[in-house]
Amino acid sequence: MLNFSLMGAGRIGKMHAKFIAAHPKAKLKYIYDVNSQFAEEVAKSTGCSIASSPENKVNECMENIKGINVPIQIGFNRRFDASHAKAQQARIKKEIGELEMVVITSRDPEPPGIDYLKAAGGFFRDTTIHDFDLTRFILGDDPVVQISAFGDALFDKNAQQEKDLDTAMFILKSKKGVLIHINNSRRAVYGYDQRVEVFGSKGMVISNNQTPTSLERYTSTSTNEKEPIHFFFIERYEQAYRDQFNEFVKCVEDKTKPLVGFEDGRNALIIANAAYESFESGKVIDIKF
Amino acid sequence: MLNFSLMGAGRIGKMHAKFIAAHPKAKLKYIYDVNSQFAEEVAKSTGCSIASSPENKVNECMENIKGINVPIQIGFNRRFDASHAKAQQARIKKEIGELEMVVITSRDPEPPGIDYLKAAGGFFRDTTIHDFDLTRFILGDDPVVQISAFGDALFDKNAQQEKDLDTAMFILKSKKGVLIHINNSRRAVYGYDQRVEVFGSKGMVISNNQTPTSLERYTSTSTNEKEPIHFFFIERYEQAYRDQFNEFVKCVEDKTKPLVGFEDGRNALIIANAAYESFESGKVIDIKF
Amino acid sequence: MLNFSLMGAGRIGKMHAKFIAAHPKAKLKYIYDVNSQFAEEVAKSTGCSIASSPENKVNECMENIKGINVPIQIGFNRRFDASHAKAQQARIKKEIGELEMVVITSRDPEPPGIDYLKAAGGFFRDTTIHDFDLTRFILGDDPVVQISAFGDALFDKNAQQEKDLDTAMFILKSKKGVLIHINNSRRAVYGYDQRVEVFGSKGMVISNNQTPTSLERYTSTSTNEKEPIHFFFIERYEQAYRDQFNEFVKCVEDKTKPLVGFEDGRNALIIANAAYESFESGKVIDIKF
Amino acid sequence: MLNFSLMGAGRIGKMHAKFIAAHPKAKLKYIYDVNSQFAEEVAKSTGCSIASSPENKVNECMENIKGINVPIQIGFNRRFDASHAKAQQARIKKEIGELEMVVITSRDPEPPGIDYLKAAGGFFRDTTIHDFDLTRFILGDDPVVQISAFGDALFDKNAQQEKDLDTAMFILKSKKGVLIHINNSRRAVYGYDQRVEVFGSKGMVISNNQTPTSLERYTSTSTNEKEPIHFFFIERYEQAYRDQFNEFVKCVEDKTKPLVGFEDGRNALIIANAAYESFESGKVIDIKF
Repeated sequence: MLNFSLMGAGRIGKMHAKFIAAHPKAKLKYIYDVNSQFAEEVAKSTGCSIASSPENKVNECMENIKGINVPIQIGFNRRFDASHAKAQQARIKKEIGELEMVVITSRDPEPPGIDYLKAAGGFFRDTTIHDFDLTRFILGDDPVVQISAFGDALFDKNAQQEKDLDTAMFILKSKKGVLIHINNSRRAVYGYDQRVEVFGSKGMVISNNQTPTSLERYTSTSTNEKEPIHFFFIERYEQAYRDQFNEFVKCVEDKTKPLVGFEDGRNALIIANAAYESFESGKVIDIKF
Repeated sequence: MLNFSLMGAGRIGKMHAKFIAAHPKAKLKYIYDVNSQFAEEVAKSTGCSIASSPENKVNECMENIKGINVPIQIGFNRRFDASHAKAQQARIKKEIGELEMVVITSRDPEPPGIDYLKAAGGFFRDTTIHDFDLTRFILGDDPVVQISAFGDALFDKNAQQEKDLDTAMFILKSKKGVLIHINNSRRAVYGYDQRVEVFGSKGMVISNNQTPTSLERYTSTSTNEKEPIHFFFIERYEQAYRDQFNEFVKCVEDKTKPLVGFEDGRNALIIANAAYESFESGKVIDIKF
Repeated sequence: MLNFSLMGAGRIGKMHAKFIAAHPKAKLKYIYDVNSQFAEEVAKSTGCSIASSPENKVNECMENIKGINVPIQIGFNRRFDASHAKAQQARIKKEIGELEMVVITSRDPEPPGIDYLKAAGGFFRDTTIHDFDLTRFILGDDPVVQISAFGDALFDKNAQQEKDLDTAMFILKSKKGVLIHINNSRRAVYGYDQRVEVFGSKGMVISNNQTPTSLERYTSTSTNEKEPIHFFFIERYEQAYRDQFNEFVKCVEDKTKPLVGFEDGRNALIIANAAYESFESGKVIDIKF
Repeated sequence: MLNFSLMGAGRIGKMHAKFIAAHPKAKLKYIYDVNSQFAEEVAKSTGCSIASSPENKVNECMENIKGINVPIQIGFNRRFDASHAKAQQARIKKEIGELEMVVITSRDPEPPGIDYLKAAGGFFRDTTIHDFDLTRFILGDDPVVQISAFGDALFDKNAQQEKDLDTAMFILKSKKGVLIHINNSRRAVYGYDQRVEVFGSKGMVISNNQTPTSLERYTSTSTNEKEPIHFFFIERYEQAYRDQFNEFVKCVEDKTKPLVGFEDGRNALIIANAAYESFESGKVIDIKF
């Protein structure tokens, strides 16, 4: 049985608490959140204890794992999405022939509050970083070597005030010459827009958006109308989050390395930093890992 | 050069006049319509003469073709639709394996006027007859042997007054045991609903509806929304009408038999009559050709 | 805490055991299956006891509930599917205007074994009964009054040997004149085909099929290609089964009546029996509840 | 009646000859092609004369129109495509709110021959120029002010030999901050990929690809499979070409200015030149009209 301390009992924290509770080999021992009501909700529903401070239990945890080669898993959950993973497999198995282009569309349904913005580290490091990792996931051992970044704060007052961005576009180029486009927005009124298009010499696969139900409407003004796509990441990627958690437990058990490790976090951050350098200089930037 | 007398200058007549004018080997010589304004429009746009009465030119025509084995082509235009024809080919080439079920959805956008209703011969003979022919087209040499028919006048005041129907459903069975469903309505607010589903031991093909453009809309309340499908038969089947006309000219030239001949009209009518017998008796009726 | 005895540890039984284990207010106390290995698997994964005979625990259960007005829930799981439920809501809220037609397509991926066939009570009572209930669900308080049934054993050797059917089509008519079509097959190579089309004076809704992922493929011979739809009922309706189980626990707790009760089972069976009468007599049969 | 001299009797020339022949107010007087057999085919099917040299009839034409303010129409045919035009209208009518992003995918089915490549002026001026114009069409009076261009010759031996490109990606920025992405390839095995996505504060419209028929296939390995999209520009944009020709005749008659004029050609070329400057320098280039 693996004991967990969970730092954070917001939306994602509650979801993780649920996964831990449902896993036959995992147990939630401590929950912490600055919002004590959130922590109490999780404690009540799972039977865990509330940690009085994050340092408290973290330090205890640090003592316990000192000298042990603990697995580190970075939360790039999209790699665990079944549709995106099939798109990657189509590249690996050359079902699309030689890879030539990738187009990633990634738009949030609505901008976060200003407190989040202040702490998030900037649009490219907070949001696009997931798309940079997805790019690395699709490309495999062909590294990206160049990036050009554009952005603006077109509509979000908070982003404008914080000198942050709400709309961005990128082109990256890989060592083999593959071209990758990413576009981001902090607002898409029809839901959490998550599309990955992988194009090659023998065809294309698209990991497309998903709606909660498969209902279609036909009226005097429209046909084939579906409801809005999944609202946000928890709705869209719940299975991916669960599968990633399950992988973590398995890695601890089997003493294996998680699929997404520390290096993946560092490399995505290097790309994000190069993106900022391009955005600020108006130049195509060479990426050095 | 083949000379044509065209009886009728309404919507379909005007379309035929256009096809004749556009065909390098055809010439429209006479147009007739009880509505003289319609006839004049066609005469003006094509340079043909206006016949003073239908009998007049028809009799002349009869004199000309007397004793000649003239080709007769029945206007079951749907057989010439490229999508429906591919569905038939999938059956012939056994791409779907052995045929087991056919589902035909055929709904008009709006009911006709009462004058049309009075002259049309009843819903099954006026409308469903096209679906009976389409069934025969899909089934090939496996004849239908039984039919059960249901119907009602649910919404159309004219149909109610004339003891006609506006909504109907049918099941037919072929000699080999294939089951066929047809459903009809005189009103579909989203356009002219024309679908053919052909199901067999190795798969299924669907000849689906078509929209005028490929535009899709995404809003805060809907996604994947397309515009209404083609409004009615002229919009939906223009290419099919043209191809059927071209086939007729070719048959006259090459002295070959048109794809849809007199027998096809007679056989579809036999099914329509059996449908009425089933509807009136509440029994499954055996079909005898 | 609600204690459960589960009779049957096959595919559906294992799924129910999982739901009971995951529910905070439910506990699986006894499992029984003629296949003792199946029962042991469930006992091991949930910690419940194995009942030595079904009568044993059922009798005990009967003693416990004697004189108590226990809720009975019939397993018509499709009513709990979110897409089908939205189609029903579109009828109730008159988003499609007045209901005029319903088309239900319901095809299994593959036929069952002969032992199942021998015990199942015939195709209409085993399979179509779900579609008869779905029809009642969509129609609400407008009862079906007539039925015409067609069927054949086109491909399944076991069905042929048992004088059972593998392919069937039905038309039903409601008191208000609504026409309903159902078609069934015991084999669809592309997966568990589950579609419900609800058509009315102001439009149509379709509860359409669902694929495991949203991947689309584009090759030199095809576009928009998705993978096969969900394989069978457990994959397609897992959420519906779970929601129906949750409803049952809630009904016991709140002493309320389950959404699908004994009467619904009886009424669907009456329709199935009328369907057999129609199939055998070649007549449209009046349905009496 | 408007007399036409047509220079070129290849694929596009033959199409134009057909439009001229079909137009009630237009007449094809002269055809010229370096391939005399092509010219003869057009002459035979339309009854026009063959010009002995292009200069011959052009000079004569120049004499005739000397001093006259003749309308010039640039062949940016995509503006006349009904789907793309609806996407533009959605921007103009603010159905998508304020415009924020445009994504244009434009891929040819197969690369041209080396003779074409030698004469075409380079990938950005030959191919992307249509997408630059489409960008201007969608944006209306908000001019593009910056561009970043990436490209490579990944697969086409001829392009590699001629130092041309076969794969390219672009980001443009408008004065108001709208971000535009374009991606191009000289080869897409599934057909002529033509998509325009217009995204704004209140939603998105996509002018999507089109298939010749609406047939869908369902097999044991795939569902929703359609055939390849239209093969190339003549199949995809025939109606747009026809409508643009009709507009030209109307402009001559009404002495009005064509929708796409000389300035539009010049401006698209300015963007193409800036794209080359960006591609060669690795910098974001400011666009000056």
